[in-house]
Amino acid sequence: MSEAAKTLEGWYCLHDFRSIDWASWKMLSSDERENALSEFRKFLYKLEATQELKEGSHSFYSVVGQKADFMLMILRPTMAELNVIETEFNKLKIAEFTTPAYSYVSVVELSNYLSSDEDPYQNPQIRARLYPELPKSEYVCFYPMDKRRQGEDNWYMLPMKERGSLMRSHGMIGRQYAGLVKQIITGSVGFDDYEWGVTLYADDVLQFKKLIYEMRFDEVSARYGEFGSFFVGSLLTDEKFAQMMHVN
Amino acid sequence: MSEAAKTLEGWYCLHDFRSIDWASWKMLSSDERENALSEFRKFLYKLEATQELKEGSHSFYSVVGQKADFMLMILRPTMAELNVIETEFNKLKIAEFTTPAYSYVSVVELSNYLSSDEDPYQNPQIRARLYPELPKSEYVCFYPMDKRRQGEDNWYMLPMKERGSLMRSHGMIGRQYAGLVKQIITGSVGFDDYEWGVTLYADDVLQFKKLIYEMRFDEVSARYGEFGSFFVGSLLTDEKFAQMMHVN
Amino acid sequence: MSEAAKTLEGWYCLHDFRSIDWASWKMLSSDERENALSEFRKFLYKLEATQELKEGSHSFYSVVGQKADFMLMILRPTMAELNVIETEFNKLKIAEFTTPAYSYVSVVELSNYLSSDEDPYQNPQIRARLYPELPKSEYVCFYPMDKRRQGEDNWYMLPMKERGSLMRSHGMIGRQYAGLVKQIITGSVGFDDYEWGVTLYADDVLQFKKLIYEMRFDEVSARYGEFGSFFVGSLLTDEKFAQMMHVN
Amino acid sequence: MSEAAKTLEGWYCLHDFRSIDWASWKMLSSDERENALSEFRKFLYKLEATQELKEGSHSFYSVVGQKADFMLMILRPTMAELNVIETEFNKLKIAEFTTPAYSYVSVVELSNYLSSDEDPYQNPQIRARLYPELPKSEYVCFYPMDKRRQGEDNWYMLPMKERGSLMRSHGMIGRQYAGLVKQIITGSVGFDDYEWGVTLYADDVLQFKKLIYEMRFDEVSARYGEFGSFFVGSLLTDEKFAQMMHVN
Amino acid sequence: MSEAAKTLEGWYCLHDFRSIDWASWKMLSSDERENALSEFRKFLYKLEATQELKEGSHSFYSVVGQKADFMLMILRPTMAELNVIETEFNKLKIAEFTTPAYSYVSVVELSNYLSSDEDPYQNPQIRARLYPELPKSEYVCFYPMDKRRQGEDNWYMLPMKERGSLMRSHGMIGRQYAGLVKQIITGSVGFDDYEWGVTLYADDVLQFKKLIYEMRFDEVSARYGEFGSFFVGSLLTDEKFAQMMHVN
Repeated sequence: MSEAAKTLEGWYCLHDFRSIDWASWKMLSSDERENALSEFRKFLYKLEATQELKEGSHSFYSVVGQKADFMLMILRPTMAELNVIETEFNKLKIAEFTTPAYSYVSVVELSNYLSSDEDPYQNPQIRARLYPELPKSEYVCFYPMDKRRQGEDNWYMLPMKERGSLMRSHGMIGRQYAGLVKQIITGSVGFDDYEWGVTLYADDVLQFKKLIYEMRFDEVSARYGEFGSFFVGSLLTDEKFAQMMHVN
Repeated sequence: MSEAAKTLEGWYCLHDFRSIDWASWKMLSSDERENALSEFRKFLYKLEATQELKEGSHSFYSVVGQKADFMLMILRPTMAELNVIETEFNKLKIAEFTTPAYSYVSVVELSNYLSSDEDPYQNPQIRARLYPELPKSEYVCFYPMDKRRQGEDNWYMLPMKERGSLMRSHGMIGRQYAGLVKQIITGSVGFDDYEWGVTLYADDVLQFKKLIYEMRFDEVSARYGEFGSFFVGSLLTDEKFAQMMHVN
Repeated sequence: MSEAAKTLEGWYCLHDFRSIDWASWKMLSSDERENALSEFRKFLYKLEATQELKEGSHSFYSVVGQKADFMLMILRPTMAELNVIETEFNKLKIAEFTTPAYSYVSVVELSNYLSSDEDPYQNPQIRARLYPELPKSEYVCFYPMDKRRQGEDNWYMLPMKERGSLMRSHGMIGRQYAGLVKQIITGSVGFDDYEWGVTLYADDVLQFKKLIYEMRFDEVSARYGEFGSFFVGSLLTDEKFAQMMHVN
Repeated sequence: MSEAAKTLEGWYCLHDFRSIDWASWKMLSSDERENALSEFRKFLYKLEATQELKEGSHSFYSVVGQKADFMLMILRPTMAELNVIETEFNKLKIAEFTTPAYSYVSVVELSNYLSSDEDPYQNPQIRARLYPELPKSEYVCFYPMDKRRQGEDNWYMLPMKERGSLMRSHGMIGRQYAGLVKQIITGSVGFDDYEWGVTLYADDVLQFKKLIYEMRFDEVSARYGEFGSFFVGSLLTDEKFAQMMHVN
Repeated sequence: MSEAAKTLEGWYCLHDFRSIDWASWKMLSSDERENALSEFRKFLYKLEATQELKEGSHSFYSVVGQKADFMLMILRPTMAELNVIETEFNKLKIAEFTTPAYSYVSVVELSNYLSSDEDPYQNPQIRARLYPELPKSEYVCFYPMDKRRQGEDNWYMLPMKERGSLMRSHGMIGRQYAGLVKQIITGSVGFDDYEWGVTLYADDVLQFKKLIYEMRFDEVSARYGEFGSFFVGSLLTDEKFAQMMHVN
């Protein structure tokens, strides 16, 4: 048996993708729409208050194409809190005008291929990555992924040393994009259908393509990567969301 | 032909996942909602009475993410009883505000790789596992799985001795989580689309991830495991369910 | 080219799985429900009359879990008759309260790996299997399946002699369940998405699991079996169906 | 690079499968139903007039099982005409009582593995196959298919000579069914999700199964065939369609 | 690790496929329909104005078969603009009579296997391909695709030189169709579920089939191509769209 990689876990994470039922939304009076939006803004303000207290974080982005209209990504200290927030959203007026499009349940994860004597959970740099404040970049990209277990290409049958060395060279590519792309890895073994969720942030959307395409030629992706659906979207500020939902 | 593993079977099992139609639920008057909830509570009390008589058991959990809103897992001495309970649920008022999300039909199973002279069905420790009272842990995790039959990775072509030895070392990992994770294995060959259902219970949801991830590096999972969808959720006490369904 | 197996064909077969729309069904007045049920009973009586004349046969079972609520399996001398019965069902009042869940089109098939001089269609034992009266066992199990054509595991590239010998040892397992499980094999090449449908009948539902699990270790299933969805259900007598559809 | 097979193309082809919404259809008054049917008959007469002018052809069949209720297969000189007919159907009253079930876009294709000096498009026998009048056989069978490109079983990497020789022996099987089964091959590379559509016609539905099953043991199917869904149905004459749609 | 191919990127691209809800559309009064069409025409005129300013481009085609009724393909300098246009469409009256059928998010891409000293973004010929005005050909064909990573057939594990040489011979086939088929390649790594979108334009629809079929025998497609769904359709001029939407 190969030795399992050691991982560190931080906040629990829910990616919640929704599609808007535009026909029904337009049938509301503009007062009804304003009330629904105002109630939703209060919900967002509460999330922001939690974020300011550093008891969680969240991202709110529109999604390009028909897969969804927006994504709300939420980080919290416990899984149960995610469940409560999800239900809270479902009871909002605006939720009646959305349909579920996709969701992903995971936990912020750091892979700890290097051994160490110190307690990583006390290391401030590691804490900042386990309990991050999510960026407000212009664009977001999310996809779930697995490490392949197929015939000769079976990640989980590789010796730990080989996996470590492959991951290090894989990480090198990522490092070239430092400052351009910020990456949050969330682990989802036992929580959802893939093994990891990858959430990328960038002000230049093209960097997502460049980074992932370059990585695809690296053995870790080329031989061992299995990818789910890709979602890409742009930041929803209060103003942009108001524009998006505005109906003449 | 490889010799089939001997198995022991206990109670039949239905995992019933449902999504709530929040928009319709909110359209009810609060009296109508209270009546529907009160009728459903009576249904749950009946399940609890059966459990106290040790003629079955059940679990009731919310589900995180869009795959479902809650899961009702029911154990009964016969398959026909599961069918009756399922229909009984479908006739409840509350069922009109839910949509089917996923279900799984199986039977509690113990693998009996060690031969023995005694009748295992008379052994009290084995009986406790075949006819278990399901835990009330904070979190639940469910997934269906197959043993792979693919090219060189064909579980069912391995000699029994090799399967036994692989399963023993696989079981070792599980044993390290004793006290942290309780596991119910249900067999579903001939009953549903995968070969087994795995239901895990833990007060610390992270233990699901740690256990399953560690197992993935073991040959039984790495080479021979095929996994379906993963569902994770938190315990629904009377109070939590009331909160969940409460609408202002 | 491998020589194709010789097959004998009997009655054409439609497995028709339906889900009940309980919310709509409950909205009917009890008179409307009774009228719909009474019209459906007349439809069933007509099927029974045909069965008594030995001009066809049928099975009516509830289905456990969310895949469907009931299954009507119909055998008739021609494919066109199946089409007529299906349309007749669709025009019934009760059909308005069901949604299609799954269906399977096939023909009763006997594999004739042993050559013979006699005309098998004149042999009364063979006729009884080609034009069977379906059992009224407590439980039914249905699944469609293919023989695998994948890399080294390609059933259709095996020499006929090897296929025959593999099938004989496979059949041996089935024979151990004689008296416990009755099996109807229907061929569906050219008629539906898998190559065969397997319908099993037993009074003890556990025998389905034991039989199929034991077979899975046999090379025919282990290397060459590809399985579709599994459906399991219990017999619907007039009385049980009345109970199932009854609403307080 | 292997040399591509030369193909000849004739009329463009749309297979249009629809399911009937019986509940809504029954809610119409019998006058409304008669008007919808009479409008649809006019649509069919127009198709028949085109067929008599030899400017196209069509088939109209019911479908057994839940995959669809009927199939309209249409041949026309241009793809644009198929688009126009499809839209014309969608605007009919009867279309409001159908839901799309499946469709397939292709073009009548002859494989021309033998080289020749003459212009095949001037050969009357070839023209009769490129611009055929579709048969009025009792039964139809449709399925889409690919030639496999998988590991060692990659049709497109075989030398042309080997493909030609494999196809000839494959064709031999088909020829044994001459007079029993008529076959229309339509190519769909670039038009739809599989590479070919196969439409078979026979008065004895069992011949579809016998032909396709026998072919499955031939290397072309056994190693290189990938099959989509199979649809089987029976001829809809004016009278049979009237019966099918008739509601008491 | 293989060296990643260098790519050049131009305008961002959204393929938006919609199905028409004919039953609802017909229920409008002819005035309401005319208003909805007139509003949609204004939307199209705005797109055309942008195209004349060379600040983007678009294509509008009907789709043959049930996969969709029409496709709007839009090119813009930023991803965010695509999101805005998509939302603008969703708020139109006509959108209430359509349902999402498929969409694809990508960016115009040129593969730059040959190194060069000049800045390609300053080269007018390259600029014309990165920021193209989409053709008004009679027919369009769209499909997404991946390069395969499977066992021995792993594109991303090939040395760059071999990939370059394979792509050159692949390109040769395309060049034979110059003047017959115009091709727009859009990259979608990180943006959507496949790695590329291929959009082809031709006045003779048969050239799509000939080109793609010929390419399938080339090693790049034969061993390394994985294809998604194919969509084919015909040009929607103002007049043709008016005809399509016209109801008597």
